[in-house]
Amino acid sequence: MTTSAARFEAWMQRELQRVEEALSAWVPADAPAGLGEAMRYAVLGGGKRLRPLLVLAAAAAVDGHPEAALRAACAVELIHAYSLVHDDMPCMDNDVLRRGKPTVHVKFGEAQAMLTGDAMQALAFEILTPEEGVVPGALQARLCRLLARAAGCEGMAGGQAIDLASVGRALDEACLRDMHRRKTGALLRASVQMGAACGRTNDVAWRALSDYGWSIGLAFQVVDDILDATQSSATLGKTAGKDAEANKPTYVSVLGLDAARRYADELLAQAHEALARAGLGEAGEWLALLADKVVDRQS
Amino acid sequence: MTTSAARFEAWMQRELQRVEEALSAWVPADAPAGLGEAMRYAVLGGGKRLRPLLVLAAAAAVDGHPEAALRAACAVELIHAYSLVHDDMPCMDNDVLRRGKPTVHVKFGEAQAMLTGDAMQALAFEILTPEEGVVPGALQARLCRLLARAAGCEGMAGGQAIDLASVGRALDEACLRDMHRRKTGALLRASVQMGAACGRTNDVAWRALSDYGWSIGLAFQVVDDILDATQSSATLGKTAGKDAEANKPTYVSVLGLDAARRYADELLAQAHEALARAGLGEAGEWLALLADKVVDRQS
Repeated sequence: MTTSAARFEAWMQRELQRVEEALSAWVPADAPAGLGEAMRYAVLGGGKRLRPLLVLAAAAAVDGHPEAALRAACAVELIHAYSLVHDDMPCMDNDVLRRGKPTVHVKFGEAQAMLTGDAMQALAFEILTPEEGVVPGALQARLCRLLARAAGCEGMAGGQAIDLASVGRALDEACLRDMHRRKTGALLRASVQMGAACGRTNDVAWRALSDYGWSIGLAFQVVDDILDATQSSATLGKTAGKDAEANKPTYVSVLGLDAARRYADELLAQAHEALARAGLGEAGEWLALLADKVVDRQS
Repeated sequence: MTTSAARFEAWMQRELQRVEEALSAWVPADAPAGLGEAMRYAVLGGGKRLRPLLVLAAAAAVDGHPEAALRAACAVELIHAYSLVHDDMPCMDNDVLRRGKPTVHVKFGEAQAMLTGDAMQALAFEILTPEEGVVPGALQARLCRLLARAAGCEGMAGGQAIDLASVGRALDEACLRDMHRRKTGALLRASVQMGAACGRTNDVAWRALSDYGWSIGLAFQVVDDILDATQSSATLGKTAGKDAEANKPTYVSVLGLDAARRYADELLAQAHEALARAGLGEAGEWLALLADKVVDRQS
């Protein structure tokens, strides 16, 4: 392991622990009628935490407000986790396994799962808006703005709607890309942007970081499709081969496996090129290594 | 009709039209894969718009930022409307009629209804966070803070969870009050607070307006329970007598009809008393008349 890789690993473990502790502190155990338990089940102790790491790596690259960055990291993970809770429900993907555990509706019932997701979305915005003294109000507003746009119909929810409408239909690559840019790309890009918003960036760096976010966002999905087609459920911690079974278009079904792998590598190269344009030098190191991790992962 | 009542009616009609136009402008018709159509179906052209009117009346009372107040009015209505979409779904109340029309899941399917609600919640926070120049950032943050707390597990979602857990169980009046304070009261109080936050208030006025919000919030629910027990579905535009049928505790079942009516009047008196404490004088007139309207309504 190179020194750089070892330092990255140490940084990552430290940040993952901070995120876990903050989520545990901010997702209330005592929320009424089992809601706290269900929210904690949905978000604690599982998941790769890619989005929080992107927020924190981008914030580190611009010497961002530490408390704001930690709050943004947890907020974006809550949005991601709520979307999984709703996505797993019987009326959507009807999935029973997530991160190697029964899904929220299997464990707590459908009605509670819906409320849990709803409460998690609200909690994300609550965490972004502590009292004025903790994080400057204008920064709170900017973080809410970025997150709301990425979560809503222009972003994640819109992508889900396209996904829903696309089952059993042939999508060309452009439509597939549009769907994924919204469904997963928007929130991954927003993670980078929220981290960057915690510090100072000029317009060139902002655009370059946004491009980096788009590239790894799409790369993440391409790799997801490859893993779904090639890995076991045990490795993934969720039901494998589901997309093919549900007759959903994927990068593997549209491009073929080899071309999908080449596309992932191409997107990774684009991410590194964008990062170079941002002109962050050494400070952008964690972002560069996170991009590699997104493409090289096995689950 | 007294002059005051006529001026109130004129003010209300003007504000209702502004809210309708703003919602129509801000809820995007072109959101992907039918999501825009479903969101507009869920929120346009129906509903009493009590929450927006409370925001705008409170803002008028404190000479609040007009654009911020209009955005707050629409955001709080979107949260309310999304909660109805999810609440009507088969896994919750399983209702087919809302505002005299088929509910969203009946018209668009369950999966789309869930996404529609999710996207509406995100849109509420999007509307609260336009670019910095439109509304000051610190005010945007404050409005998001108030709305997120009222929508989440300490507020509406928490109340829904208690509601869900209470079916078929005997609740005493204290538990019933706690449930309704969260389920409907928190958002109604937040409406008043968000309007007040758009202008300047001292601590005394802020607390008094918050108390006013609690009182009319609870009064609204007591009257809702009375109407559910005494009116027809046609009058209400939604299925009547449902609470009794579902064996849900209500103010009518816990207190009896006469005592529930007396309680509504008592809460109305408390609302007026709180308003007097706020020391707004003539500027609080619309809030006083809205309180009367909450208790005197027939649907």
